[in-house]
Amino acid sequence: MIHKYSIDHVALVARDAEAVAQHYKNMLAATEITRDDIPEQGVFVILLQVGDSKLEIITPTVDDSGVARFLDKRGEGFHHVAYAVEDIELELARLESEGYRLIDSKPRKGIGGHLVAFIHPESTHGVLIELVQHVD
Amino acid sequence: MIHKYSIDHVALVARDAEAVAQHYKNMLAATEITRDDIPEQGVFVILLQVGDSKLEIITPTVDDSGVARFLDKRGEGFHHVAYAVEDIELELARLESEGYRLIDSKPRKGIGGHLVAFIHPESTHGVLIELVQHVD
Repeated sequence: MIHKYSIDHVALVARDAEAVAQHYKNMLAATEITRDDIPEQGVFVILLQVGDSKLEIITPTVDDSGVARFLDKRGEGFHHVAYAVEDIELELARLESEGYRLIDSKPRKGIGGHLVAFIHPESTHGVLIELVQHVD
Repeated sequence: MIHKYSIDHVALVARDAEAVAQHYKNMLAATEITRDDIPEQGVFVILLQVGDSKLEIITPTVDDSGVARFLDKRGEGFHHVAYAVEDIELELARLESEGYRLIDSKPRKGIGGHLVAFIHPESTHGVLIELVQHVD
C-alpha cells in the first residue's frame, strides 16, 4: 500500500553498510529486505525492514561520488528522507514550477527498479529529499 | 497502532519552525497535528502529519540548549529518528547492558506526554536515535 507523501524510507550513509546493517539488526530487530550494488551511482546499498518502516544503508564504492563526498564532509549518519508519491513526473513538474531546485529533473531508476528523483537540500531547509514512485 | 521499532517520526531542526512547517505543507501536503513550547528543553516544536508518517520540526528557544548548539554547528536539517517501542525501560536496560551510550538512562516526558529517551550518535554510527513509548 503506497500513500502519497508518506515516508518511504530513511537513508543513512555508512563507511561499511554491512556493519551498520548488523547494528540495526542488533539494536532494533531489523531484517534485511535486499542488497544491491549500483555501479552507475558508485554505491552499495542494504535495505532493511524495521517494524513497518524501511532504512536504506548506503556505502560509496568509488571515491568521486556524491555519497563519498557527503561521507567525507559530514561523516556517517543521516543521508536523505524518501517520500512515496503516486506520479513522480507530475510532482517534479509541480515542484520545478514552484521554484524548487531539482537534482533530477526527470526520474531515474533506483534500487528495486523504482522511479526516483532527488530535491536539493538548498530548497528544503537542509534536508535531501527523494521522491519514489513504486513500479511493480 | 504502535509497532515495536517502527519509525515513529523523523525530527528536523529549523531556525523558524513555522516557516519549515509551511514548507512541508506546500511541498508534501503536510497537516499540523500539534505544536508545543517545551521550556524545560528550550525548544518550540511543531508536529506534522505527512501521509501515514510524522515529522517533528524543532526550533531552539534558548541559546544554550543542545538543539541550539546542533543548529549552530550543522545548520538546518535532520536532527533525529524516533522509533516506537512497547516498553522503553526494558529497551534502555537492554541497550545499556550491550554498551550503548544512553543520553537518557531513564525515560522522560516528551511532546504529547509520551515517554522518550535518546541514544547517543556515537553508539549508532552517527544517528541520534530517540525511543518513544506512547502513553495514552
